[in-house]
Amino acid sequence: MEKREKKFPVLEIFGPTVQGEGMVIGQKTMFVRTAGCDYSCSWCDSAFTWDGSAKDEINRMTAEEILEELRETGGDLFEHVTISGGNPALLKHLSELVDLLHQEGIKVALETQGSIWQDWFMDIDDLTLSPKPPSSGMKPNMGILDDIMKKLSESHHAYSLKIVIFDDNDLNFAEDLHHRYPDVPFYLQTGNDQVHEEKDEQLIPNLISRYEWLIDKVMENNRLNHVRVLPQLHTYVWGNKRGV
Amino acid sequence: MEKREKKFPVLEIFGPTVQGEGMVIGQKTMFVRTAGCDYSCSWCDSAFTWDGSAKDEINRMTAEEILEELRETGGDLFEHVTISGGNPALLKHLSELVDLLHQEGIKVALETQGSIWQDWFMDIDDLTLSPKPPSSGMKPNMGILDDIMKKLSESHHAYSLKIVIFDDNDLNFAEDLHHRYPDVPFYLQTGNDQVHEEKDEQLIPNLISRYEWLIDKVMENNRLNHVRVLPQLHTYVWGNKRGV
Ligand code: SF4
Ligand code: SF4
Repeated sequence: MEKREKKFPVLEIFGPTVQGEGMVIGQKTMFVRTAGCDYSCSWCDSAFTWDGSAKDEINRMTAEEILEELRETGGDLFEHVTISGGNPALLKHLSELVDLLHQEGIKVALETQGSIWQDWFMDIDDLTLSPKPPSSGMKPNMGILDDIMKKLSESHHAYSLKIVIFDDNDLNFAEDLHHRYPDVPFYLQTGNDQVHEEKDEQLIPNLISRYEWLIDKVMENNRLNHVRVLPQLHTYVWGNKRGV
Repeated sequence: MEKREKKFPVLEIFGPTVQGEGMVIGQKTMFVRTAGCDYSCSWCDSAFTWDGSAKDEINRMTAEEILEELRETGGDLFEHVTISGGNPALLKHLSELVDLLHQEGIKVALETQGSIWQDWFMDIDDLTLSPKPPSSGMKPNMGILDDIMKKLSESHHAYSLKIVIFDDNDLNFAEDLHHRYPDVPFYLQTGNDQVHEEKDEQLIPNLISRYEWLIDKVMENNRLNHVRVLPQLHTYVWGNKRGV
């Protein structure tokens, strides 16, 4: 057996808390947030993972060290870990962490935009692919995405597509994607355009009305009958606070 | 083939809207609400289905008539129907409706408290069993529930348990149930103790703080590591309004 000695750039380890988004919304989980992203979305709500602003907070940790800190923080209060970023798919050897967590009986969720394939995707219990819509300023490589979706169709685990929606263009993008991969569980999520708003009494009604807008749009669209529409639930509870 | 002539007591047909609760939270769906319940939970948020207050609104409809009204209301804007109540499991012949919807390519979700078995449970695509906790004033028959869970363990479809939580007693009840059926996807949901509050500015902050209370309780409990904790999302958007 290969020795686990690879180091991963880690920005935050926190929890247990609830997953606020997507296919396992509400799940009790710990979070491990890795640093670094190959994208630079205009509305990125975790830009500190890649824009240099938190570079002094990055710890380079082995899988064992990550597990140790998960245990120090979460004790025996978790059996599910969510790996987020940034884009954790940048980390070729992340299987070392995934395997170690599985050995401990811990399930693993992961989110990535789908710009890079890694073989360890096949081992993730709850894998969310979140290709970025036009409003992000990014342009997904559809060839790579096709390839990823084809490989995942042979996976034994749960996976889904989740698209963040800010406007009608984004919704068109989502509609095309849903019909390109019609059998894949498909989630639409409201975007948060006020990631720096600290006053919850202003933020939350605004987020709820964005959610209502998105619901209305989806309800009147007969090409979006099989989708699920969700907000970022954690922002209703904790606003824009980090690490909760 | 048996002729479909059974009539079902229907109180509301509406949608498309989003499912606000449980295992398919966010799903675009139509709702069919049947009348009648064998329980009388103290905090029932659809007491009008059984307390006589809406008895003049009950329509006795065949499966065909229900489908017709779904099409009149929802047009081609749906491929998912949720049957709720009351307790739709009171309706022995409801398979006539389930089969008809399936013939139309429509998926069917259903929620029941688990007091009665029906063979057509095996055909429901998304089945939620929601045994009532102590605060409801009801006492679930665990023998019947054991039998239902055993039968469902051979189902090819998705099913889950969902417990509404108002207080610590309810949480103890949920904990026991989760460990009685450890392999069944398990959802905890905040209760709404203000089902008659019409002012959203009072209702919503209160519901959010109840959700936060439930999250805190679950996070500190190491016997509730595999659960999902959710609010009633529709109340954040529409308050206590009926038929949305
Ligand atoms: S892919 Fe995700 S982490 Fe990377 S820039 Fe976009 S939103 Fe931010
Ligand atoms: S089982 Fe459901 S519908 Fe029946 S009384 Fe209880 S909450 Fe109301």
